[in-house]
Amino acid sequence: MFCEIAAGQAPASLVLDRGEILAFMDIHPWRPGHLLVVPRRHAVRVGDLTGEVAAALWSVGIELAAALRASNLGCDDVHLLVNDGPAAAQTVPHVHLHVVPRARGDLWRLGARLAQQPVRRLFGAVARDILDGHAEQIRAAL
Amino acid sequence: MFCEIAAGQAPASLVLDRGEILAFMDIHPWRPGHLLVVPRRHAVRVGDLTGEVAAALWSVGIELAAALRASNLGCDDVHLLVNDGPAAAQTVPHVHLHVVPRARGDLWRLGARLAQQPVRRLFGAVARDILDGHAEQIRAAL
Repeated sequence: MFCEIAAGQAPASLVLDRGEILAFMDIHPWRPGHLLVVPRRHAVRVGDLTGEVAAALWSVGIELAAALRASNLGCDDVHLLVNDGPAAAQTVPHVHLHVVPRARGDLWRLGARLAQQPVRRLFGAVARDILDGHAEQIRAAL
Repeated sequence: MFCEIAAGQAPASLVLDRGEILAFMDIHPWRPGHLLVVPRRHAVRVGDLTGEVAAALWSVGIELAAALRASNLGCDDVHLLVNDGPAAAQTVPHVHLHVVPRARGDLWRLGARLAQQPVRRLFGAVARDILDGHAEQIRAAL
């Protein structure tokens, strides 16, 4: 799926394209502004990446954490997370770094959202115009 | 707290010491084998690290993920997580990358453990000899 996004053959709310690294909005966000950072070249596990690409992925994630905080999305702090392998809840077999904005006091919202994920995955993603709006706000803060 | 560990002034079950980067067992592990990777020099957020130290932190985390999988700890897959800031559940104000081993079917054990964390934090850490044993198993797989 992420390879099709990288090839421009599937829609995505793109935030940045640095050649080897792409970032776009998660279509099932845990919180509004939830980003995925992925290597353009297919790899399943972080251990399959070259050192250079792994470092670039991480560096872009840190840069996007700053952009989320600087944006108008109400982000105080950020999770940076790779679920590496299916036993660690990796659902798409293409390396992706989650960059998840958090706001003070939003734990219950996050918990409710995560509890709803199986149903949301069945009934479809967040509307594209909302995701595009978030992407635009984050790009403006880069 | 992590600065005292880095200075050798507080006990830790050390797995590696690469000068700028240390890794040791979390004393409140979510799963057996849960590691923390930290920069020796104090920094609160990942955005406060130099690019070089941030990259080294990440690279050591990926290396330890491989060691966990190769160890006898029954690790199938791994979470790599930085909680960056208190609103994102960062409890120690010194950058730390969690490297958390997972095994197929352990979701309920993880959930139970996370639910117990507040009580465990009150009543003390996992025994040092157990943590030292896990550290030794991971070192042997490096």
